[in-house]
This record gives sequence, structure tokens and C-alpha cells, in this order.
Amino acid sequence: MKVPHRLYLSEEQLPKAWYNLRADMPEQPDPLLNPATHQPAKLEELYPVFCEKLAKQEMDSTTRWFDIPEPVQEIYKMYRPSPLIRAYSLERALDTPAKIYYKFEGNNTSGSHKLNSAIAQAYYAREQGLRCLTTETGAGQWGTALSEACSYFDLALTVYMVKVSFQQKPYRKAVMQTFGADVIPSPSDTTEAGRRILAENPETGGSLGCAISEAVEKAVTSEGCRYVLGSVLNQVLLHQSVIGLECEAAFEMIGDYPDVIIGCAGGGSNLGGLIAPFMRDKILGKHDPRIIAVEPASCPSFTRGKYAYDFCDTGHVTPLARMYTLGSGFMPSANHAGGLRYHGMSPILSKLYHDGRMEAVSYEQTKVFEAAVYFAKKETILPAPESSHAIRAAIDEALRCKETGEAKTILFGLTGTGYFDMTAYTAFHDGTMKDYIPTDADLQKGFDGLPQM
Amino acid sequence: MKVPHRLYLSEEQLPKAWYNLRADMPEQPDPLLNPATHQPAKLEELYPVFCEKLAKQEMDSTTRWFDIPEPVQEIYKMYRPSPLIRAYSLERALDTPAKIYYKFEGNNTSGSHKLNSAIAQAYYAREQGLRCLTTETGAGQWGTALSEACSYFDLALTVYMVKVSFQQKPYRKAVMQTFGADVIPSPSDTTEAGRRILAENPETGGSLGCAISEAVEKAVTSEGCRYVLGSVLNQVLLHQSVIGLECEAAFEMIGDYPDVIIGCAGGGSNLGGLIAPFMRDKILGKHDPRIIAVEPASCPSFTRGKYAYDFCDTGHVTPLARMYTLGSGFMPSANHAGGLRYHGMSPILSKLYHDGRMEAVSYEQTKVFEAAVYFAKKETILPAPESSHAIRAAIDEALRCKETGEAKTILFGLTGTGYFDMTAYTAFHDGTMKDYIPTDADLQKGFDGLPQM
Repeated sequence: MKVPHRLYLSEEQLPKAWYNLRADMPEQPDPLLNPATHQPAKLEELYPVFCEKLAKQEMDSTTRWFDIPEPVQEIYKMYRPSPLIRAYSLERALDTPAKIYYKFEGNNTSGSHKLNSAIAQAYYAREQGLRCLTTETGAGQWGTALSEACSYFDLALTVYMVKVSFQQKPYRKAVMQTFGADVIPSPSDTTEAGRRILAENPETGGSLGCAISEAVEKAVTSEGCRYVLGSVLNQVLLHQSVIGLECEAAFEMIGDYPDVIIGCAGGGSNLGGLIAPFMRDKILGKHDPRIIAVEPASCPSFTRGKYAYDFCDTGHVTPLARMYTLGSGFMPSANHAGGLRYHGMSPILSKLYHDGRMEAVSYEQTKVFEAAVYFAKKETILPAPESSHAIRAAIDEALRCKETGEAKTILFGLTGTGYFDMTAYTAFHDGTMKDYIPTDADLQKGFDGLPQM
Repeated sequence: MKVPHRLYLSEEQLPKAWYNLRADMPEQPDPLLNPATHQPAKLEELYPVFCEKLAKQEMDSTTRWFDIPEPVQEIYKMYRPSPLIRAYSLERALDTPAKIYYKFEGNNTSGSHKLNSAIAQAYYAREQGLRCLTTETGAGQWGTALSEACSYFDLALTVYMVKVSFQQKPYRKAVMQTFGADVIPSPSDTTEAGRRILAENPETGGSLGCAISEAVEKAVTSEGCRYVLGSVLNQVLLHQSVIGLECEAAFEMIGDYPDVIIGCAGGGSNLGGLIAPFMRDKILGKHDPRIIAVEPASCPSFTRGKYAYDFCDTGHVTPLARMYTLGSGFMPSANHAGGLRYHGMSPILSKLYHDGRMEAVSYEQTKVFEAAVYFAKKETILPAPESSHAIRAAIDEALRCKETGEAKTILFGLTGTGYFDMTAYTAFHDGTMKDYIPTDADLQKGFDGLPQM
């Protein structure tokens, strides 16, 4: 089959079930722990924070497939399938023998893959009769996605937006408001967690970990309200498996299979979803693709973090998860890839990385934006800074193929568009963009705050 | 066939030729006139301003099909086909028996249909060995599209951006700069036309007509440079026929045909492209769809303008075109649909409207934004203000169907996304958005400036 520039599955080919990678992992990620007792968290303990169905998905490591509820499938059809794009133009420009593919998740109003889980989570909340949800957002992609989903299912929504992103992206707020959400810059004085963080560090630009604390606190102190999260959690990776499943079907159609799979990693939602069926093949010995997580050098959870139990948030209201972490007290610098500024990492991905099933690399942001602009000019898509980490790694891999003459098949996740990141692009053009690499001493401060187990 | 939510043609089904509606019009639009002699403009007279191939397309009313050059097809494949979307969710929300379809052109980085012509025009400029292009942009969609196209074909580009849009949409500028364009707010002091307009009206927010004058002047006074335009011209409607041709093929696949076709109209590029094959069917008596142009009440070229010879620009450097016009001196108010703030209208559409083959309606912008927000919440796409004019009319048509019980098939053009229009959405949410309707006296001033023929 001649590979088209954009490969779309038909509506009938869309996945009808999410794939739970844990069911095929020979060893499970370590369980969530109750932060008070350090005992494995019980399902019921999650209910005050999470919807029941979502809590069950979170804890379920044996059910291999979860049916996608009809109403969720119905909304998926409004913006899915996302195209698998063959980067012919980029390949020509790089003069590489590699075949480069990317799964483009940016063609929906939320501008990213985040909508895949937002819809699922809003649906289950509605099904449970809840009236409102709270969440945090970094770059604003998750907040936008959840705003859309809540608007569709008629749920009230409060979004705590990392302050630095709130300031860099004023229009993100306006989009969320268009869909009816209440958007609050975090840390804020609306929660105890926020007030405490502000007292310690009044000038902080905030972080995902801090916004999570606020959102969780708001949820558990509000009637008929629950908290939802756009990354890190097992349930989110489950929903995002739709990305990988569509890729798998598309590669079957074109009779190819990726040799290298690359995704940016903040909390791991996109990467976890993208690689799910390919990692299964790798675990089962059917294929052996290289799988590479790409993170910012300013927030290097995989490449410089510790595999340890830690809080998922800065305010220490969440359960403990064993993951690659920089410590929940680590405050990442104001990197423009707001969606990657998270101290921890998905426990599933952390386990896979720890077991040597995947690799990780980090890049400084100027290198990432060089790749972003190059890509935009060749492929006519303006990528989000987060996604551009994957672009950078994919380009470098394709250039290595040029040196070695290998015609590898490279797949990367283009998670979203950069429409709301023009402040960052302008800083790059102006030459005012800086790179931030934490010193070992910076990191040690974060590690010093890890809970004593 | 069960109609999917999103219908994509395959790459093989993409149009290989543009359709020239003029070849099937029983009466031709009146010819462009030389502004000095008032005689029909000769092909050679256009060469200082336009690329030769584009000038030929402009003047050619008999060639029915123009092959789309291979390199243009190649780029089309990077973002086309655009989906024809069945608005199931909107239909349910409106509880209408009507079937609502929209052709969504917003899923490319330029965010609109404008890329279809930008690529063609940049290609022909490159083919002719030119080094640079100039243009104007209102909402910024055309400027963004042309920036992408010029970056791809390695041409320098100067964009005169209507000042009010430049101020409302700072990030548009950043996107164009990412693709390498030089962006200047218009009116500016870089041209005689701009300086003259500024001297007369220093506080003006500019207009498309004024930005055109500047861009044309810049092109004819620069070496190896030509001017390109994103709307109004016959050549642009020709390139945009790809929209209508894809729709035609999609409706054939699902075995339906639109009863009503609706598009927003500023200069007419989207509407002219969308309706091309359907208007042909209407002219040839094969089908009889209603065709409706929707314009802002603040800039009502069709509904309150005169069918007369007029300049295409404010500075009177262009040929005269016979069209529906408010007079080239008419300065539209700062309506948020910057792409529709043009005093004139495509001569082809003007002729069709004059001959009674199509209708026109106008809406005030608050009514338009009501529809935009309603649509966003139901269809999960944030529409551009321009496109939302068509949404408003389509919703109203669907509501009439609800009253009459008619199961009409409605097709409208969703030309672009509103990511860069959040200032406008915020004004709507805040209740600070105003409606502007020119008085008869306002219009008379514009008409008084029409050239004496």
C-alpha cells in the first residue's frame, strides 16, 4: 500500500475498548500508599477524591480491556480518529532514509490529546450524579479539554492553572471560560494548600504539583464534587491508550511497524497512551521497538530523578505513588513547556523505565524550539512546546539514520498545537529564551523532601 | 450508507483540478477596468502586480478546469482532505429534523481555508522566479496561511495587517514571524498610501481596503516582488473550489445533496469556493439549492451595498471591479470578524447575487457570538468569528425546519478556528461587545466616493 500523507481510520475502525497495559506487565507498578499509614490505599479510600468507576480503573491491574462507554465513543467520533501522518516533507528536508510518522492529536479545539481522558472522566462523573469537578492545568491543554468535556456533560468545573502559564497564556483562560469553567491562578488564596505555598514563596510561578493540591482540597471540601487529573494516573493512561490503538491499526493497514517510538513525558499520559500496544508487543516478545521518553532538561524526572515513593502533589494531600520523582518540593523553573513541569511521572511508565523496557532523554528548551520552528516550516503544523520535545528527539534519530544509512521507521506523538504558546515562540525569536538546568544541589533539595518510608 | 460524524475522502479522491465556475456562468461578471482609461484591463497590465500565471487565471472565463500543479497537490495532502462533519450533536441540541453538515477548514496551522489559495499563489510566484511577495491580512488568517506557504517555497513576505486586528491579535503576528514573515500594522508610514490615510484619519483602525493599497504599492516598488490577495479575486475563488469539490464528492458518497448552502462572506473566497460545483448544478438546472451569503451588519456589502464599479482598495491603486460595494472609502467599525471587514465583494459572487442566483443576510456580532458559543459547547470546536456568521444562519435555518417539520439538508462552511480571537470572546462574555450598524448617512458617504463612470 502506498502510504498516504495522512492516514485516517474509518469510524468503524475506531477502538471500542481501552487497553490496560498493566494486564500484560509481568511485574506491576507498586501500589498507591495511604500517606498516613503507608499501607496500600484501599479502593474506598479513593472515593472521596475520585469518581467510583475511575477509582476502580485506577486500581484494576487485571482487566485487559475496558469497554469505552457509548456516549464517550460518540464524542470521540466528533474529533477522532486523529491522523497518523507520514512526514514526507520533513524526511526530504532532513535527507534521511528514515520513515517518520507522527500521530497528530492537535486537531481538536482543546488542541491536544488531553480530550481523550477528559471526556471519559467527565462522563463517569456525570454518570455518578456529580455536579462539579476540580482540576489543575499546566500549559492549559488539560484545562481546556476538561472545560469542553464538562460543558458537554453539563458539569461545573473549577480549574487551578499554574500561575506562570496563566500569565504566559491569557487566552487559554478565555477559552476555558467560553466553555463555562472557573479558572484560578495557582497558588491562590482559595485553599489552605495554596495559602501555605504562597506564604513560603510569595513570588512562585506555581507548579503542577501545587495546583493539584489546591484542586484536590477544593474537591473534597465541596458538595457533590470530585477531583480529576489529566496525567500521571493509571486511569488516564488507560483512556489515552486510544492513541496507541489507533496507531497500531494504522500501521497494520500500511504493513509497517515502528522501530522507534518517541513521546514527550511530563506526567506520562501521552507517552503511556501512545506506546501501550507496542509495549505489550515488546513485553510479549512479538516486536522489539525502542521506546524513548523525552523530557525537559529543566525538569528531568526520568533522567535525573529517583525511583521512590512520593506525593503526587506539593501540598501532600494525595496518596503516595512509587515513581521517578524530583521530590514534590522541587519547583521547576519557568520552562515554556508548562505541561512538562511536573516533579513526578506515571507509576506505570516509571516501572517500565526502571525495568529497562524504555529509555529517556532530556533536552534544553532552545534546542526544542529550534526543532519546533524547523518542523513548522516543513510540515505546516505549529507544534506545542511539549510536543516539540518529541520532535527534537525524532529529528535527531532521523539524522542518526542518515549517518548510518538505516531506513528505520520512527513514530512520535505530536500531542498538540502551539497556538497559545506564542509568548514562548516570540522569546525564542527574540533570543531572550533561556535554558535552565538544575544543579545537583537543586535536585538534592527536592530529594531531601522525599517522604521517609 | 450510515453517515459518519466526520467524512474524509481518501488521498486518491482529492481533486486534481480546480473548477472555474465562470466557464458555466451564462453571463460573465463585468471585466476589470483600467482605473485611468476605464477600458477593460489587458492581461499585460496585470503583470506588474500579479504573477503571470495568476493573472491569466484571473482573466480566463472559459477554461473550465485548471490542473492543480503537482507540488501544490503535494502540500494539499499535508492538511487535506478537510472533513465534512455531520453535526449530530448540534442537531440533537436544536431538536431539529434538519440534517446539518459543515465543511471544517480549520484543521491546519493557519487555522482556516486561506491556505488553499496561499499555497497556489506562492507556488506560481516561485515558479516565475520571484523572490518576494506582499499581501494584506485582516483577521490574520490569510497572512498566516501565506506565511506558511512562503516559508515552504522559500519566498520573502511582507504582510500589512489591519491595525485593529494587529492590536486585537498580538499572537497572530508571532505566528507569522515564526514562519519568517515581516508583519506591519496598516495604515503605516512605509507607503505613500498609508501615509495619506494616516494624515486624513490618524486614529483609524485600518481596513482591508487600506492594507491592500499598501501591499500593492510595496510590491510594485520592490524588485522581484508581486502582490497576492487572499480573497475577492477570481483566481482565489478558483483555488478555493477545492472546498466545494471535496464537499460534492463527499455528498455523492453519502447519497445526499444540500438543500441550503451557507457561507460567511467578506471578500467571498470561502463562499465562492464552497458553492462552486453546487452553483454549477443550479445554473445547469440539475439541482436547485438555496445559497446564502452571511455578512456582518456592520459591513453589509451585499445587503445594503450598490452593484457598481469600484476600486478594490482604499488608496485607489487597483483596477476597478464591478461588485457589490459600500464604496472604497467606507471605513467599517471595529467588528471582531476582521476577515469580513471589506467594503467590496467578489465580482463573481456579485454577479450571481445580482442575477438572483443567491441570497444574502446580515447579522449583528452579538447574535453571531451567541451562536459561536452555543456551537462550541455542542460540537467541541471553537469557531472563528467570521465562520460563526455562517453558524448563526445555519442554526436559524435549522430552527425554521423545526417549526415547519422539514428535514432539510443544510451545508455550511466552517472556515476556521477562533484560537486567536479570544479578545472577542472575552468581550462577549464580559458583555462589553457592541453592535455597530451603519446609518444610511454613513453608507451614503461611502457611495459618494464611488468612481464616476
